[in-house]
Amino acid sequence: MELQPDPYTAACPSRQVLDRIGDRWTVLLLGVLADGPKRFTELGRRVEGISQKMLTQTLRGLERDGLVTRTVQATVPVRVDYELTDLGRTLSAPIAALEAWARDHIGDVITARESYDRRQPQP
Amino acid sequence: MELQPDPYTAACPSRQVLDRIGDRWTVLLLGVLADGPKRFTELGRRVEGISQKMLTQTLRGLERDGLVTRTVQATVPVRVDYELTDLGRTLSAPIAALEAWARDHIGDVITARESYDRRQPQP
Repeated sequence: MELQPDPYTAACPSRQVLDRIGDRWTVLLLGVLADGPKRFTELGRRVEGISQKMLTQTLRGLERDGLVTRTVQATVPVRVDYELTDLGRTLSAPIAALEAWARDHIGDVITARESYDRRQPQP
Repeated sequence: MELQPDPYTAACPSRQVLDRIGDRWTVLLLGVLADGPKRFTELGRRVEGISQKMLTQTLRGLERDGLVTRTVQATVPVRVDYELTDLGRTLSAPIAALEAWARDHIGDVITARESYDRRQPQP
């Protein structure tokens, strides 16, 4: 490829990649999977508030992007495990940094929001 | 605060913070603003494909969260500048890491997608 990937250009595939990883469910699911392989039901339990549909959809996207593998074991009931691929593991550090930022700066953000809301005219 | 912030819990404010920063427009806008203050129109030009409405809405959210300041200069026409706050600047490194990941691994992701799509039954 001669041109550099540029996520600021709408048509550049790197924009699509950013869309995939810049998504709250992706960030949270990759965060859980960084601990090790997990079953579908366990992922749903760990990421509070995610619907079955969104969980299925996000995992399918992650599998398609080569970030996660899905292994089906023909037990009764069927057991489905998800695990980070090597590529998925390269995302763990950036994801963890984002998550750490959210934890560390939550107080600053809440203070900013309260101050902003006080400055706005009440409806 | 006695409890640790936990973005995996739906009700924790750190989840909301993650929602804000785990969003493609936020990632791209903070990326542009990391270069220095920018005017509204310039931001719209730099982030291809963002609608006026989404630009306004995302910038308002970033201002409310204390990540960006908005300065209005009473010129004709009115000039509106956006700039990262100190808090916003602390997000630049994690955001840049995510963006760099998207640029570096775009090839791997495209290959994975093509291989996944070949394995799926055609409609």
